[in-house]
Amino acid sequence: MSNSEVAELPVLRPAVPCCPPLTQRPLTVLEAELTAAMFKALGDPVRLRLFSLVASHDGGEACVCDISDVGVSQPTVSHHLKKLREAGLLTSERRGTWVYYRVVPAVLAAMAGVLTA
Amino acid sequence: MSNSEVAELPVLRPAVPCCPPLTQRPLTVLEAELTAAMFKALGDPVRLRLFSLVASHDGGEACVCDISDVGVSQPTVSHHLKKLREAGLLTSERRGTWVYYRVVPAVLAAMAGVLTA
Repeated sequence: MSNSEVAELPVLRPAVPCCPPLTQRPLTVLEAELTAAMFKALGDPVRLRLFSLVASHDGGEACVCDISDVGVSQPTVSHHLKKLREAGLLTSERRGTWVYYRVVPAVLAAMAGVLTA
Repeated sequence: MSNSEVAELPVLRPAVPCCPPLTQRPLTVLEAELTAAMFKALGDPVRLRLFSLVASHDGGEACVCDISDVGVSQPTVSHHLKKLREAGLLTSERRGTWVYYRVVPAVLAAMAGVLTA
């Protein structure tokens, strides 16, 4: 991936936390769209492994340079990390050559809350 | 949907709970596949609304006959409920004319656990 592709790092994440526990009441259309987008982001095995690599990395952040052994190319890794950022699950920050990704704990907590009975 | 389509109700759900919190260590390939399948099941807005309708319905269960106002046809509702069942998020039981769907609390708790910091 060229640097220009991630140079601007727009913030695309939806407002969170948004939604009540699924057992509490039926979600509205808007709530379902916001929440489904977050679940969908974790609904791909490679993307989920990458997310766990970032989430469990020293200091709670990682760059593409820290990630190997997932069986996909670096452009594919970058693509998946971008998807996770767009879904609001990761934030990113450029430092020197690399873009570092960090988990957004509030989003993870909101997703867990939605699944709480 | 004809009755024959759901008559056998095979149990296709993976063994759960399976996986540690995403922040604890990178998931293995198998763990990621199992967990991503559950997140993917909730990654569609209509399916997520249907799931919340079942999860929040009186008695914790619902049949297609209880579900309306989601803007999709009954066959589409049945299709989504089947997907949720195959992902292990719902169980089903035929009683008379209708198949009743019920949330599997252990699966919901396992998913929430994966998202816990």
